[in-house]
Amino acid sequence: MNLDDKLKTLRERLGEISGVGAAIALLEWDQETYMPPQGAAGRGLQLATIVGIAHRLFTATDLGDLLRELRDERDKLCDDDNAIVSETLYDYERARKLPESFVKEFAEVQSAAFNVWMKAREESDFTQFKPYLSRIVELCRAKADMFGYEDSPYDALLEEFERGARTKSLKIIFAELAERQGALVREASCRLTPVPEWLSQEWNDAAQWSLSIRMLKDIGFNMNAGRQDRSAHPFTTTIDYDDIRVTTRIHADQLFSGLLSSLHEGGHALYEQGFLEKDARTPLCQAPSLGMHESQSRLWENIIGRSLPFWEYYLPILREYFPGKLDSVNAEDIHRAINRVEPSLIRTEADECTYNLHIIVRFEIETGLIEGNVKVEDVPALWSEKMRKYLGIEAPNDAQGCLQDVHWSHGSFGYFPTYALGNLYSAQIFEKASQDMPHIWDDVASGNFSPLREWLRVNVHQRGRRKTAPELVMEITGMEPTADAYLRYLTKKCSSL
Amino acid sequence: MNLDDKLKTLRERLGEISGVGAAIALLEWDQETYMPPQGAAGRGLQLATIVGIAHRLFTATDLGDLLRELRDERDKLCDDDNAIVSETLYDYERARKLPESFVKEFAEVQSAAFNVWMKAREESDFTQFKPYLSRIVELCRAKADMFGYEDSPYDALLEEFERGARTKSLKIIFAELAERQGALVREASCRLTPVPEWLSQEWNDAAQWSLSIRMLKDIGFNMNAGRQDRSAHPFTTTIDYDDIRVTTRIHADQLFSGLLSSLHEGGHALYEQGFLEKDARTPLCQAPSLGMHESQSRLWENIIGRSLPFWEYYLPILREYFPGKLDSVNAEDIHRAINRVEPSLIRTEADECTYNLHIIVRFEIETGLIEGNVKVEDVPALWSEKMRKYLGIEAPNDAQGCLQDVHWSHGSFGYFPTYALGNLYSAQIFEKASQDMPHIWDDVASGNFSPLREWLRVNVHQRGRRKTAPELVMEITGMEPTADAYLRYLTKKCSSL
Repeated sequence: MNLDDKLKTLRERLGEISGVGAAIALLEWDQETYMPPQGAAGRGLQLATIVGIAHRLFTATDLGDLLRELRDERDKLCDDDNAIVSETLYDYERARKLPESFVKEFAEVQSAAFNVWMKAREESDFTQFKPYLSRIVELCRAKADMFGYEDSPYDALLEEFERGARTKSLKIIFAELAERQGALVREASCRLTPVPEWLSQEWNDAAQWSLSIRMLKDIGFNMNAGRQDRSAHPFTTTIDYDDIRVTTRIHADQLFSGLLSSLHEGGHALYEQGFLEKDARTPLCQAPSLGMHESQSRLWENIIGRSLPFWEYYLPILREYFPGKLDSVNAEDIHRAINRVEPSLIRTEADECTYNLHIIVRFEIETGLIEGNVKVEDVPALWSEKMRKYLGIEAPNDAQGCLQDVHWSHGSFGYFPTYALGNLYSAQIFEKASQDMPHIWDDVASGNFSPLREWLRVNVHQRGRRKTAPELVMEITGMEPTADAYLRYLTKKCSSL
Repeated sequence: MNLDDKLKTLRERLGEISGVGAAIALLEWDQETYMPPQGAAGRGLQLATIVGIAHRLFTATDLGDLLRELRDERDKLCDDDNAIVSETLYDYERARKLPESFVKEFAEVQSAAFNVWMKAREESDFTQFKPYLSRIVELCRAKADMFGYEDSPYDALLEEFERGARTKSLKIIFAELAERQGALVREASCRLTPVPEWLSQEWNDAAQWSLSIRMLKDIGFNMNAGRQDRSAHPFTTTIDYDDIRVTTRIHADQLFSGLLSSLHEGGHALYEQGFLEKDARTPLCQAPSLGMHESQSRLWENIIGRSLPFWEYYLPILREYFPGKLDSVNAEDIHRAINRVEPSLIRTEADECTYNLHIIVRFEIETGLIEGNVKVEDVPALWSEKMRKYLGIEAPNDAQGCLQDVHWSHGSFGYFPTYALGNLYSAQIFEKASQDMPHIWDDVASGNFSPLREWLRVNVHQRGRRKTAPELVMEITGMEPTADAYLRYLTKKCSSL
């Protein structure tokens, strides 16, 4: 085969893998949106089958040979082709590092651990989950050994979700965050005001739904190449380059929860709709990391969606959607209501100001487990200690404590930090955007989101996976990722409330 | 491998094929229901990929070896295992008869022919479609040669949709139908009454939707293992044993179109929900033919759904769903309105009494094309001649004539007769059911559909693919399939109007 044929074959193979990936994404999307209840057992079997096929396609020896041949001819390839080859080879070699028997065992333990975790959380009893968590930790450490690492075994796990990040530097960043963000929280907590009465009304479901669709369209989500549906837990999924789907959930007693959730997923969706068409069905049509992806959802949800100018624009529209319900409310009232700071027990319900502290609790415990300084049986006690230390409160039971999140039962060690990194990246990137576009808040206040969206498209989205997240932050802002911009942002917000 | 291991392996392979089949079904379902418009191009690629994988899995040489080994040990197998082996082997050998190069060429010509047909129909110009139809006919004849046949090459094509049916006997049955049903239509047309005025109201969309759901539940569709959605062209699809989906479309100006369409698809869905759980993910969990499947949809849509007792039961309910709109209408009025006989040009809009005549027009032309007695260029003229002969009317153009159906562009020669056979089977089977259950119409008039549903479940659905359609009709009714019961049914209905 000559070089062109090899590249053509690679594109075909990637297209095939992407086709199978689309089937997996659709089966999962349907499972959360429309699948009838009795379909659940069958869906598990279908997914196991298709995931197995995807794995076989992706780890095929001849694909590896092709990739290595192309790598060896890298001098003859253009930059983009080189990037496609090196990124695919990176994924390929990582996938090949785990023997099939290990992948199978991991999946089995995962599945058992998940079921036990569900029950243990329901009964708020960590002791049930303990042996499964021990096994999961063992397997994760074995996995880290198979992937290899230089410094901490946690690095090897982190790499799966946040390529290029290192445990050592995260520890430094998070320690600083814990101190300075903790101080902000303590200060804000002293000024705690009650939940305003006007919020406790019933908010029409259909009006919430159509307003959420309107907001998605306003920020630039292309509804001809995507859609929004309902699900218990909101998510964004990519079926294919031109088919990006978000979900939301609407509560009649919470006006802003559904709207901000749509903005959050909308931020993810704009990322997925912002890749270059020529990169479609290659690794370049992906974000470099979960943290970078999360930066876009949090930017739209928090930096924009919880800002005063945003609600100055939307208040008259809100009044149209909910006639008579907001006559005596002004934009400042909304701004205050959706930025209320109050330490609470559950991460997914935490406000913006306390959120990272929840992550730090988990990060310190999970690095300890993987690095061997923390014993599984000590997790509940450590959880209490750290919640007290960072948030000043303590969970009354395991269900509201160390059993609240699904991640450890899934074996997803290294996932939590990506949420906090998303916050940091979002502020650092947005700070640069607002330097480039001094009128950005005037635009937001007049409902003009296209300058920001187009800036993000060029500077973030279209870059795809050509850089790692830290490299991309450096490219955009001229600085390593740090907590500084985020702390500046949070301090300013807290002082404005 | 010992026998048990071989059977276990076969079940696993079938499970895997069924998992891929589920992905295909879901991709297709989504394409017609929720996929955003720009997703279309990607969806084509995804489906091509997954269909290719399904084909490779199913035609794998080692699967054939396994099946033949099991067939050679048939004396040691129970009846059901033998049926699974022989039915899978039947499918396997049929799939292997077509070389991959031929399958690929066929798919390419199909795709091109479909696109040209769309344009030709839009512009009502058969000459555009002619060269593509010629190529399709050539390929279908080549296909017939590859499959092999004894009498007519059309037999080999028929086998794909209506296994066990033969061209020769269909010609006899359809000739009789044409004569006797033609006479009924001529007689009924003389008594043509205008469309009643009360029908021309606007019928609330949400009320139509929820009534259609109610009817589906009433006839026994299990909504925990299925669902209804909207699509431009109603269909039923099986994602998996416990996940059966129907679609419908609702027109504000047509009250009965959506409801009867739901009943039609509901009939298909009851069939799919009526298989035995132990047969799940094997060929036994399938109908023996399209005609047999259609018998169940037409039984519920026409024999039940267009009967007087059915509307005696539903009239008070209709009045609840559409308050004030049906105060002066009685069940007889509805019965007359939904059974109006009037020869018309479009098959899919034809009434029950004229429907089979549309099929006979197509059957005579397509057998002629495949057997070589009809030339492609003569199709429009033949169409006019036969429409005049059987229905007494003539299409003013190709769009409303020989270009109206998609089937030929798909290369689906042998498909049309299954619609008419569905009608014949439905009447012959229902005649036996009403002999076994003399109070069947009292049950229908009181909204009790479970006796009929359970009778069909035992006598038809649970038999799966253990017999061919003609064998199953014989098993159920003690007689070969004929047109007699259907003509008795239609004569009685016409005289009751």
